[in-house]
Amino acid sequence: MKEKKEKKEKSNTSPARGMRDILSVDVRRRDYVMSIIKETYQKYGFEPLETPAIENLETLMGKYGDEGNQLIFKILKRGEKLDQELAKFNELTESTELANSEHSENSENSKSSGNSLADLALRYDLTVPLARVAANRSSELPKFYRRYQIQPVWRADKPGRGRFREFYQCDIDAIGSGSMLVETDVFSAVAEVLKNLGFKEFVIKLNHRQVLRGILEAAGIEEARQTDALVALDKLDKIGTDGVVGEMLKRGISEASINKVLELFKKINSLSENAEILDALKDFVGENQFGQLGCKDLGEILGFAKDLPIKIDASLARGLSYYTGAIMEVDVGKEIGSLGGGGRYDGLIGMFGKEQIPACGFSLGLERILVVMEERGMFPPEIAAVNSADVMVTIWNEESVADSLALAQELRAQGLHVLLYPEADKMGKQFKYAGQINVPYVVVQGDDEKAAGMIALKNMQSGEQETVKREDIAKRIKAA
Amino acid sequence: MKEKKEKKEKSNTSPARGMRDILSVDVRRRDYVMSIIKETYQKYGFEPLETPAIENLETLMGKYGDEGNQLIFKILKRGEKLDQELAKFNELTESTELANSEHSENSENSKSSGNSLADLALRYDLTVPLARVAANRSSELPKFYRRYQIQPVWRADKPGRGRFREFYQCDIDAIGSGSMLVETDVFSAVAEVLKNLGFKEFVIKLNHRQVLRGILEAAGIEEARQTDALVALDKLDKIGTDGVVGEMLKRGISEASINKVLELFKKINSLSENAEILDALKDFVGENQFGQLGCKDLGEILGFAKDLPIKIDASLARGLSYYTGAIMEVDVGKEIGSLGGGGRYDGLIGMFGKEQIPACGFSLGLERILVVMEERGMFPPEIAAVNSADVMVTIWNEESVADSLALAQELRAQGLHVLLYPEADKMGKQFKYAGQINVPYVVVQGDDEKAAGMIALKNMQSGEQETVKREDIAKRIKAA
Repeated sequence: MKEKKEKKEKSNTSPARGMRDILSVDVRRRDYVMSIIKETYQKYGFEPLETPAIENLETLMGKYGDEGNQLIFKILKRGEKLDQELAKFNELTESTELANSEHSENSENSKSSGNSLADLALRYDLTVPLARVAANRSSELPKFYRRYQIQPVWRADKPGRGRFREFYQCDIDAIGSGSMLVETDVFSAVAEVLKNLGFKEFVIKLNHRQVLRGILEAAGIEEARQTDALVALDKLDKIGTDGVVGEMLKRGISEASINKVLELFKKINSLSENAEILDALKDFVGENQFGQLGCKDLGEILGFAKDLPIKIDASLARGLSYYTGAIMEVDVGKEIGSLGGGGRYDGLIGMFGKEQIPACGFSLGLERILVVMEERGMFPPEIAAVNSADVMVTIWNEESVADSLALAQELRAQGLHVLLYPEADKMGKQFKYAGQINVPYVVVQGDDEKAAGMIALKNMQSGEQETVKREDIAKRIKAA
Repeated sequence: MKEKKEKKEKSNTSPARGMRDILSVDVRRRDYVMSIIKETYQKYGFEPLETPAIENLETLMGKYGDEGNQLIFKILKRGEKLDQELAKFNELTESTELANSEHSENSENSKSSGNSLADLALRYDLTVPLARVAANRSSELPKFYRRYQIQPVWRADKPGRGRFREFYQCDIDAIGSGSMLVETDVFSAVAEVLKNLGFKEFVIKLNHRQVLRGILEAAGIEEARQTDALVALDKLDKIGTDGVVGEMLKRGISEASINKVLELFKKINSLSENAEILDALKDFVGENQFGQLGCKDLGEILGFAKDLPIKIDASLARGLSYYTGAIMEVDVGKEIGSLGGGGRYDGLIGMFGKEQIPACGFSLGLERILVVMEERGMFPPEIAAVNSADVMVTIWNEESVADSLALAQELRAQGLHVLLYPEADKMGKQFKYAGQINVPYVVVQGDDEKAAGMIALKNMQSGEQETVKREDIAKRIKAA
């Protein structure tokens, strides 16, 4: 019992479950990656957008599928509104107890979701907020609005290795055109981000929702079971052919249909050229209008994007329900999984506004990029320093505090990052501290140096000490 | 009824109450200010820290006073835990109805706060999370840890002009030393931020919690009424002497005590030099140990910070309850109010960890800074452009799409921000669009130009058009 209590006290200062405190080196790494992403996206004409962390609950509910609804962090109502809901709640419970079982089931539902107790929710992705903004500002935004957005999102997912409940997404979206040139330009931008971050090899996996629909229809799978079939197919990489067959059978898809689909995939797997794969897909979907439309789009993208490492992956399905056209993921290595994905969603903005506005976007996951870049040693060495100070100014004695302050200010004015030791401790203690925090230089102005207008400068790495004219210190440190 | 419904549909795409969508120009303004703040704080040896938006509810509760507790956004529990709470809730209500009035009052309280329904909460400031981190990482952080942190915080305050429910704070804090050198260095850093942002005149208002305590005790106000007295005093600027007297009388403070305090303030108001004010304070607090200690600190800060525009303001109290020593605010003009404030809080970290660790910090409010800078026209003109693209590449016809793509990529490779028009519309339509979005240059590669290896370049502002060698375009645009 006692042990348990101690454990609890200790955990009080930990971040909440699935959350992280991010300290100096890691913040610098994140800033490095985000600044490259920003600069690159600006070159492609994307403008910045920031949306609030808090959205109305109704804005988010129903946009991410059933699982998504469960993972949205909901914010408790406040003040009178909360009191009102709690009062209603009690009434509901009382009437439920009196009511017959037919009604009580519904009441149970509304009870356990707790939705009436919340009015707000935390941003779950960056696409739905963009769609809301695009509908809200449709008269003010340019017809072909392109925006980038780099912000955290929150999901009440089970935390695991490399999976957090707060994580950053880096999104670009191009709104207003249905041209496949948009997909191509989005691919080019993402590819350049990866190149600028230092990734030499990567693959853009490409597929199309209408091609998938065409395949399923051509295989005789009725519309009501197509989503199930896609969910199963999307796992092909992970659970293999047998796993996919099992899942599909369980969901009531006929063996004949399953075999047709698997035969197609077997054939595709034996092909290496996009053109061959596209031909196989065209053959398979035949006269199916959805399939034909999707194949036409894929053909156009492949024609425009000749220089990009695109690979058609007919099993790529992507989880989110709002995609309507091309879908894509980017991979930098088999073992890692995708660093991001996206697609065309021509129906989402219309859910918020009067107009249907076509749109296509791509989302890079910052956390995954950081993990891979760290594993591969892709960060420049200068951002790896725990401490970013160039020099520490010591304090000779109580009487020279003002002198040390003035010296620190002089060096800062010359652009150095300067730590001022805060107390007139013994010099040995001050040097010991400088060693602990790993600062490269320490300066001392003792009485003798002061009289001569000089400063003692110690290189903490080499241990060398020299006496330098006060006005030359910054130059000396910068030259190193 | 119909009108009401239409109104509601329209508001569905607005951001939630007190929240904002921030578009291109405004994001650029924010980035500009934040990058200056970051660079300046780095020069003073502050390292970056980021803490999660979501904290455990218990981390935040009780740290910001009663009003603060009410304004914290609380996150609803999820899944089974929510179900359990809702079940308990019903039991509680039932037992409340059966219980006598003595118990029902408590039950009512826990009901209307709804606290048991929430387990998490949104970051309310950056100081409490820092104190949590400092306690959590005490063995790993340097003894004199200095960090800057620029992140949003959320408060369920009533939204108003310039007052939002999501806003950014820019904090620096120096942990581990009780030396007044820390206060001085913090002031220097804040002063340099303001200078680097372009503020030419500002005042750092300085006071001390122990001086305030000394004043109140010397005036014969008992400890239990001192907080009330401070709250009243803090409003001196807003409600004037009569208002302060009224508030104090209402709170049971004797007329004799009030008169003593007001007499001191009258005297101080007639003085202009910090040294004179400090002498008046020393006289007034006499033998009071808190007052003496506070005056000593103020004297040291004034001695160290001779070059800074500091002004002792004995009525400055600052709302937050955790301050223990020097307190400060920075003003850039009488009509504006403070751009930020801070102080010493030597007890807060000890609330989270075993050790008492002294600390001092300052928080600048980003939103207020932005408002003032915009009113005063302090932003550089280049960040005011709605659209950041340097040039738009047109599409001559369906056959030349790939050429336009290649041209856009070439110009991007040379560092230009390039918008690619996404469709092979009529040239007039493409130019009209370029005019609407205010892009400075448009390039066209018609069949004739293509044959000659040339590109037509139009300056959208002057209307001039010239034919330029393909390889010279970027140079030409950059030269302008």
